[in-house]
Amino acid sequence: MQYKAIKLVKRPKINITPDLFETVTLETPKIKDGEILLKQTHMSLDPAMKGWMTEDRNSYIPPVELGEVMRSSGVAEVIESRNREFSVGDRVQGMIGWTEYAVSKGQGLNKLPPEISAEAVLCVLSLPGLTAYQGLMEIAKPKAGETLVVSGAAGSVGSMVGQIAKAEGLRVIGTAGTDDKCRWLEDELGFDKAINYKSDDLARELKDATPDGVDIYFENTGGAVQHITFYRMNVHGRIVVCGMIADYNTDKPSAGPNWMNMIRRRLTMTGFAMPDHWDAVPAMSVKLLGYYKAGKLKYRAHTLSGLESAIEGINLLFTGGNTGKLMVEL
Amino acid sequence: MQYKAIKLVKRPKINITPDLFETVTLETPKIKDGEILLKQTHMSLDPAMKGWMTEDRNSYIPPVELGEVMRSSGVAEVIESRNREFSVGDRVQGMIGWTEYAVSKGQGLNKLPPEISAEAVLCVLSLPGLTAYQGLMEIAKPKAGETLVVSGAAGSVGSMVGQIAKAEGLRVIGTAGTDDKCRWLEDELGFDKAINYKSDDLARELKDATPDGVDIYFENTGGAVQHITFYRMNVHGRIVVCGMIADYNTDKPSAGPNWMNMIRRRLTMTGFAMPDHWDAVPAMSVKLLGYYKAGKLKYRAHTLSGLESAIEGINLLFTGGNTGKLMVEL
Repeated sequence: MQYKAIKLVKRPKINITPDLFETVTLETPKIKDGEILLKQTHMSLDPAMKGWMTEDRNSYIPPVELGEVMRSSGVAEVIESRNREFSVGDRVQGMIGWTEYAVSKGQGLNKLPPEISAEAVLCVLSLPGLTAYQGLMEIAKPKAGETLVVSGAAGSVGSMVGQIAKAEGLRVIGTAGTDDKCRWLEDELGFDKAINYKSDDLARELKDATPDGVDIYFENTGGAVQHITFYRMNVHGRIVVCGMIADYNTDKPSAGPNWMNMIRRRLTMTGFAMPDHWDAVPAMSVKLLGYYKAGKLKYRAHTLSGLESAIEGINLLFTGGNTGKLMVEL
Repeated sequence: MQYKAIKLVKRPKINITPDLFETVTLETPKIKDGEILLKQTHMSLDPAMKGWMTEDRNSYIPPVELGEVMRSSGVAEVIESRNREFSVGDRVQGMIGWTEYAVSKGQGLNKLPPEISAEAVLCVLSLPGLTAYQGLMEIAKPKAGETLVVSGAAGSVGSMVGQIAKAEGLRVIGTAGTDDKCRWLEDELGFDKAINYKSDDLARELKDATPDGVDIYFENTGGAVQHITFYRMNVHGRIVVCGMIADYNTDKPSAGPNWMNMIRRRLTMTGFAMPDHWDAVPAMSVKLLGYYKAGKLKYRAHTLSGLESAIEGINLLFTGGNTGKLMVEL
């Protein structure tokens, strides 16, 4: 049986362009003892992928080698099994890659309960949900009653950060790039306030929305929101730097704020990446599933169709064109 | 008996100017039961004082009120006592202020062992030493073999940071503003390398001095050293922001680095001020005295003479004109 996969064949300079990839048609192999054959149904597209395409000796995980299938997480069904831990029909989540089929020995795969949809898995239990939980709960350590500002609030991470913070009793202000996204944050996700960062009077809107200052800033974007919020931080505030999507597709990074306010307000700023914390994933998954089952985590999926839609589609993450957690249905 | 004291009568705008102060001549009061009369012998001048003169609701301690004696730490001798915890002739350290004499009930005063000079007390056991210990040992948590860069390395805090780090087995690189200071750091204090930040090729010198990257950056100055070192940080590096002396006397703070590197290297940056950590002072003093007695902490005092020398002299801290821990001998 033939299937398609997409290999990374070139590293990105500034933008992710179609020539970085090569689609190949392969024959599904005969599985050996201990192996399973997976048919992927949903494949996640995440901003972190740009880092995985790039060589950087300091990156948290090695880059995808040129000629390898592009790395991604996804949900798949077991369609053949010679491994007694997996049965045909099981659904699993794992790093499956840009491919319709994959052979696995089962390492790193999580079996999924039947009551959760593939979309929910990729929105809530996958990289974005884990990243949100780790950054907010383990790094920023919020206390009920504190004020949180999250940039990129309608994004896959930001929307989870805001909802977890609401579940934990914080006052939550989010920024996003369209009025539609802002309405969704306020009306559906229960944010206390959502602000369109393209507003003419962003500084005033952020000030009015945070009369008691800001205790936690969860950074997904960079840009003007960063500079304004930095000067609204309260004493002993925490800044979690998770993403700088405004700067991913530029070779001229914008200036950051002067560090004097770090001292004046005795701030802590932590840059983090979820893969440094894989050990904590099982415990975090339990927590996230708990919030989800309690109805605290809503999501919006933006689903592309067909493997090759990933090639152009991934850029929606950097233009803000996606209207929810970006994924590909296969 | 008459004595002089200096009151703060105006708040600084950008620079500390003589018109902020008023020298008054007072009569030493008769002490009451429980009180002691102190004759100050050495008075510390520290960069933090500028913050104490300024109103800022977020400051770690309230500003000096207008009309009050300017705040400072110092060493004094007990010359009268109606408090049974103190005897005439005892030497004490405490927040005595810009004054020749002071009355105290004893709170906040530490009795000093006879074997340590007043200069050593103000260099090693006072605010700079405590700040260095707290920032390096409690916040950055160094491990032997790591590389530390400290800016303002010849300053009162920086010189202690570097020496404590050497005592803990780190590789230590310092930056300072004159070749003489650099020689002192290398030849007397045992820094692995000291670099004049006015060098034409600062970036190359910092790179050559840190072949394995930088694990800890202890920031006292801001400026070019900050930007260069930020991009030499290793994964999981720690940045301790203690001072930004290059920006104290300007109303146009310079831009900081873009935050993207916070994520790439998963850095932690912490702004701190020693007065948030007074509880830890007794334990830290013991540690500092231990290093000092073991000959690990050398210092250079820059001693001005006479109370009123503080008024102009404090600016040496902001021009880099001091050649050691700045203090006034009374």
